[in-house]
Amino acid sequence: MRIISADSAAALLDEQFNARFLVASASVMVEPPYREPSSVLAEPIFREVDSGFEVIVHEAELCVSLLDKMRADVVHLDMSLRGVSIEDLSPVELANLRTSKVGRQNILKILPRLRKIAGEIKRVHGIDMLAIGKESVPVRIAELTAGSEAILFACKKVVDDGQPVMLGLPMMCQPKVHENRVYLCSLISAEHDVRSFAVDADESLRKVKLTETLNPCARGFRALKIEPTR
Amino acid sequence: MRIISADSAAALLDEQFNARFLVASASVMVEPPYREPSSVLAEPIFREVDSGFEVIVHEAELCVSLLDKMRADVVHLDMSLRGVSIEDLSPVELANLRTSKVGRQNILKILPRLRKIAGEIKRVHGIDMLAIGKESVPVRIAELTAGSEAILFACKKVVDDGQPVMLGLPMMCQPKVHENRVYLCSLISAEHDVRSFAVDADESLRKVKLTETLNPCARGFRALKIEPTR
Amino acid sequence: MRIISADSAAALLDEQFNARFLVASASVMVEPPYREPSSVLAEPIFREVDSGFEVIVHEAELCVSLLDKMRADVVHLDMSLRGVSIEDLSPVELANLRTSKVGRQNILKILPRLRKIAGEIKRVHGIDMLAIGKESVPVRIAELTAGSEAILFACKKVVDDGQPVMLGLPMMCQPKVHENRVYLCSLISAEHDVRSFAVDADESLRKVKLTETLNPCARGFRALKIEPTR
Repeated sequence: MRIISADSAAALLDEQFNARFLVASASVMVEPPYREPSSVLAEPIFREVDSGFEVIVHEAELCVSLLDKMRADVVHLDMSLRGVSIEDLSPVELANLRTSKVGRQNILKILPRLRKIAGEIKRVHGIDMLAIGKESVPVRIAELTAGSEAILFACKKVVDDGQPVMLGLPMMCQPKVHENRVYLCSLISAEHDVRSFAVDADESLRKVKLTETLNPCARGFRALKIEPTR
Repeated sequence: MRIISADSAAALLDEQFNARFLVASASVMVEPPYREPSSVLAEPIFREVDSGFEVIVHEAELCVSLLDKMRADVVHLDMSLRGVSIEDLSPVELANLRTSKVGRQNILKILPRLRKIAGEIKRVHGIDMLAIGKESVPVRIAELTAGSEAILFACKKVVDDGQPVMLGLPMMCQPKVHENRVYLCSLISAEHDVRSFAVDADESLRKVKLTETLNPCARGFRALKIEPTR
Repeated sequence: MRIISADSAAALLDEQFNARFLVASASVMVEPPYREPSSVLAEPIFREVDSGFEVIVHEAELCVSLLDKMRADVVHLDMSLRGVSIEDLSPVELANLRTSKVGRQNILKILPRLRKIAGEIKRVHGIDMLAIGKESVPVRIAELTAGSEAILFACKKVVDDGQPVMLGLPMMCQPKVHENRVYLCSLISAEHDVRSFAVDADESLRKVKLTETLNPCARGFRALKIEPTR
């Protein structure tokens, strides 16, 4: 199966390690054996964390952009609704799925737009867009991809602004810089061979100092202090 | 403690990575330090996945077969009911344990047969059969054992049928072939030294090609594509 | 941030691997990158496991003792109440937090004493004591510290009594002896670089034999058999 997926990841943190601004979104193409992306579209977003579910609409649009370039068998969206097809997800069916009240209300706000995108994907490409979320390996790979791109976007911001930032990374992963690439490797059990990377075309990595730290207030999360090196 | 346990594992998958046929059952003897089995009884079952709880009765019978050959202190069954003794598990007590409605109904169907087996074990061997499930290391070792035996049963089927199969492996483990053994090593945190293996007496491994892949629709699960090498 | 935290850990087990006596409490100072303690206060407690929540009051007092010696920015207590400040935690607010009925009753018993300690910390040092529990890396480091100290306290007891003990270790960690130190390294995903250690000033380690085993009835937990070497 050729699977297209998308996610948003990494957040600028304040001094108390609270997430403030979501940094990047990415869509990915993932093929067997489903360990890394084979194609990537990424964008800086620097959007307030509280804007929440709105970002999923943008992720769906990024999937469409990738789908316009290459063939896929299915689209995996980062919504955990047991893998139902978004096109079939009426407000009535949503009420039957076990979701929290707040979660359901947030989904209802974006559902018309998501269903329109899903209908378009079905009509043009003949494939489904599934709300599979946490169960999907391609969604995890999209998260690691958005995270590695976010590191470069944040480095560029640090170089431009001359101010250090603390970047909160996706859950359970660790960054590794190798030449002009920044890898983000999963640390989740049984994901030891799952990773993604971003290419530093702007050579921002050379102009900053990276220091990894654990997030003391959120077990499983790491952060990267990014400082300018004048 | 000398602990006998049993479990069933690995499933033939369809093209969408859905589990169709459960492949193998195994009972094991596990002794300190509880990392590998010291004795094994395994059987191919190739049973429809939906037959569900029925398979537990067969697992209990496999425990009895192993118990007829060697002494043990307790039997661990793959049912997660807080470690209660099956013999003491009346329908009334079952109602007091927190189980889902569907789960309770499935257990009620097999409970008379399980209690009969538990009574027999108590009478003949003087030991308890516990519904400990997820909390038991020997149950995990039985799962890895059934999984490694399932790989060989599936290889044999591929050699006999001349058709490839996709075999879904137990949760969070990875296969390793070494000489005429196929190991299944746990990838769960703090189980890095827990594993089992099956011996390829029929030399089926030489007649197939194995390709490992992640299951893209079920995080934590891996699958093995097994193809004949003519 | 400089964070002080405390926890209690490790238990003497009976023959069926049931926890009987909690062995040690420790408070720790943890600083960036939050992987190990920079200062430690530890005490043997050998208290009945069922005494439960009482031990948290003692842990808060150990935090105060450490705070009397060095400056910190916040105190993390091993109570999982979403990080609320203990000082602000009235019985009314506690009722609004999602806790089990039994949990709430246990907390209510110790809440007056905890709030008194929190008020004292605020008055004298100007910092908060948070009920952050499971989300806190410093709480995990305090747990590993108490566990490594408990190994030495248990070794000393074995040398004194001439009787072997089985010591149940904290969740998902593994002991390593190096020279006169016993390390306890986390085995939790994404905590591969988190650990603590205790220094064997009494040279008890030389007078015992340590054998590691998995706890067969509690997945993720390991135990240490400690025997005297006459």
